[in-house]
Amino acid sequence: MSSITLSRLQTATKSTARVFTPLCKGTIHHQGVDLHSSFRRPYSSFRKLTSLPLTKWFPRCVSTRLMSYGVNVTSGGYRKGVFLVTGAATVAGIAVGVCHFQRAEMASRILLPEKDGDILERSKSFMCSPVTDVQALQKRKDEMSTRMEMLILETQSAFCKALEEVDGGSFKVDRWQRKEGGGGISCVLQDSKVFEKAGVNVSVVYGNLPEAAAKQMRSRGKVLKAKDGKLPFCAMGVSSVIHPKNPHIPTVHFNYRYFEIEEADGTKQWWFGGGTDLTPTYLNQEDAVHFHSTLKEACDKHHPQYYSDFKKWCDRYFFINHRNERRGIGGIFFDDLDSPNQDEVFAFVKTCARSVVPCYLPIVRKHVNDPFSPEEKAWQQLRRGRYVEFNLVYDRGTKFGLATPGSRIESILMSLPLTARWEYMHEPAKGTKEAELMEVLREPKDWI
Amino acid sequence: MSSITLSRLQTATKSTARVFTPLCKGTIHHQGVDLHSSFRRPYSSFRKLTSLPLTKWFPRCVSTRLMSYGVNVTSGGYRKGVFLVTGAATVAGIAVGVCHFQRAEMASRILLPEKDGDILERSKSFMCSPVTDVQALQKRKDEMSTRMEMLILETQSAFCKALEEVDGGSFKVDRWQRKEGGGGISCVLQDSKVFEKAGVNVSVVYGNLPEAAAKQMRSRGKVLKAKDGKLPFCAMGVSSVIHPKNPHIPTVHFNYRYFEIEEADGTKQWWFGGGTDLTPTYLNQEDAVHFHSTLKEACDKHHPQYYSDFKKWCDRYFFINHRNERRGIGGIFFDDLDSPNQDEVFAFVKTCARSVVPCYLPIVRKHVNDPFSPEEKAWQQLRRGRYVEFNLVYDRGTKFGLATPGSRIESILMSLPLTARWEYMHEPAKGTKEAELMEVLREPKDWI
Repeated sequence: MSSITLSRLQTATKSTARVFTPLCKGTIHHQGVDLHSSFRRPYSSFRKLTSLPLTKWFPRCVSTRLMSYGVNVTSGGYRKGVFLVTGAATVAGIAVGVCHFQRAEMASRILLPEKDGDILERSKSFMCSPVTDVQALQKRKDEMSTRMEMLILETQSAFCKALEEVDGGSFKVDRWQRKEGGGGISCVLQDSKVFEKAGVNVSVVYGNLPEAAAKQMRSRGKVLKAKDGKLPFCAMGVSSVIHPKNPHIPTVHFNYRYFEIEEADGTKQWWFGGGTDLTPTYLNQEDAVHFHSTLKEACDKHHPQYYSDFKKWCDRYFFINHRNERRGIGGIFFDDLDSPNQDEVFAFVKTCARSVVPCYLPIVRKHVNDPFSPEEKAWQQLRRGRYVEFNLVYDRGTKFGLATPGSRIESILMSLPLTARWEYMHEPAKGTKEAELMEVLREPKDWI
Repeated sequence: MSSITLSRLQTATKSTARVFTPLCKGTIHHQGVDLHSSFRRPYSSFRKLTSLPLTKWFPRCVSTRLMSYGVNVTSGGYRKGVFLVTGAATVAGIAVGVCHFQRAEMASRILLPEKDGDILERSKSFMCSPVTDVQALQKRKDEMSTRMEMLILETQSAFCKALEEVDGGSFKVDRWQRKEGGGGISCVLQDSKVFEKAGVNVSVVYGNLPEAAAKQMRSRGKVLKAKDGKLPFCAMGVSSVIHPKNPHIPTVHFNYRYFEIEEADGTKQWWFGGGTDLTPTYLNQEDAVHFHSTLKEACDKHHPQYYSDFKKWCDRYFFINHRNERRGIGGIFFDDLDSPNQDEVFAFVKTCARSVVPCYLPIVRKHVNDPFSPEEKAWQQLRRGRYVEFNLVYDRGTKFGLATPGSRIESILMSLPLTARWEYMHEPAKGTKEAELMEVLREPKDWI
């Protein structure tokens, strides 16, 4: 197993000449599978977990919704440049008025105009050429797997560039291949000026689902019908965890993923999952409201119930059971989303993915020069310990990834902080800022 | 939930006057169960795990064995003072000759002469009065549960005192009670002179086994027969993890435990488990040989096959599967031990428990003043990260404890280091001391 590592500078230099076949063909031998974005619970347990009403996700009138954000529907897609920019700016404006936050102008500089079908052109802005060969992507440009791969690579690139801008450092870009099919691009910025550890990972893997995994993959309670014991699948996603150095800048996590599986009779099952959530060391009411409002705005474009339901799901999911506390102040989380139709769900996922920068970057910029004490740093380290506990003990994606032979462990465990701390019987004194955080971790709040 | 905390000094002061009913009766309200020492795998999976031959553990001739260590068998026990002292000194002598190691004289000062039945007297040296009421212990002094409770409390005390002697600090002693029955004593020395975090925990819990736990408790592949859905059980153990500050002093872990369960027809199933293992940051051949030789010496007193089999079991158990490396350089590990008879297995467990101080303390004393560089400290922190990964992802006891409602989480997670570190894609350069360690973690060695 080996990998190639490109700094952003190298990538940028090469990108001017490359023709977007995988970079350094023949020298990339990373085996690995990053299925951790793609683990599906059976629908029955999904219902149990979420206690959601049996809502069917029929969105509001499509034309109205899209028009209200200035987007024209073109045949086969929703791709026009103004889409996110408008949304992001609106969100930032609504959420925080004209206060500390620097508006999300950076989004307009960073996020690309989305041109229909121009895969080669769009690819040039990525951290690395796509996982799938560009010519293959061009051939099946209207397929969901292509559209999603482009979205996750764009999301990775936009987020990395936004972080680089605020940090001044450059992401290390690792491109890796999986022996059984597919591969990924892991971008890491470690021990830099602003960020202790920032990881943004894309993976696109395919092959036949292992027997053990297949058993857990049931569609709406039914066992998936395999042909000769084989269930061809395709899983892809973008996932990221950002641990800043300054304890006044919260940790953020997001993950957007797509899964396709082919049954014996040729039926394709597919679904999307994802979410964005915030883990502060100290509670900042204004940050929490901004973060949740930005997410609500994104959700509301697609269904009036999405934010409320997915916010609750997030609070349930990121729960450290043995501590009786949540990992952070939540955000949104969803899985198994496959209605009303593929285009609608993709559009929702796209809106969510594009809300990541406006959700998080204004908070980073606001606190980047905040002074902090050694005691505040120590408290951050203790909270980092809880982050590790959640990720290693409960996170289904991490557990699934660690248990899957051939996984790319370094990409899965990129989510762990650079440093963490565990003190025996640590309990913040009443009335402190540390205790204030604990209260909202024990009893989740409605932020909007 | 609350607890009382006694410094060693307080404990010592109080012990002169106390009459060994539980200290501060009525003010101790800690709920919790520390079953993590007591999780039993079904025998079938035990066989699979270990690939041991179907050895029946008939020890060598008892009288010869005991005589060779200068111990006279008294009715109902093997309790004479010279037992461990002789053993420890012999072991240290054999293992390391007259080299760096300070001989295990400290053992003779620290370990108590074991007097038959003198429970009140023996209890005075403990970190805290026994978990079970002393009068109750006296009434059933010949029962295994009493003998084991005394052993684990003695082991805790002897080990804590040995560590205090080398560190200069004092253990914080937390006594806690479990609502459903029993309780424990957790001793922690944190951020002290020599030790970053040293935890030595005793728990004695009883009640009815929860349904979920009972399902996993099968005796030799058979389901345990519950009466009206109830399976009365008693579980007790001593467990410890010591993380020193100096990267040249290895981390040590040990755990010795006893489990009793009563079936519907009144049949009592019982078994012992345990082990001691070493996790160095840098490999020191001499330390490894000393540690393993001391354990082999202890095992050889009871069966010529024990060390070899339990060493292999240890190497298999402490395996970080997703890293393809072991947590440390092993030691011994066993579970489900219930033959040839209760007295024999107890005698073996006792020898093991009493070998902890001579296994570890000479290594601590040898390296306590070793100089170290920031780079060596950083490598230690990375290895601490792997320790966390093993404990949270694989350790059956930790997982079982975290999943058991009412567990005392702080006692279970005492095993986590004070600080840990995760670097993306860290790989030691070839030929370095760090790479040397990795080699033995990937390919376990025979040290003797």
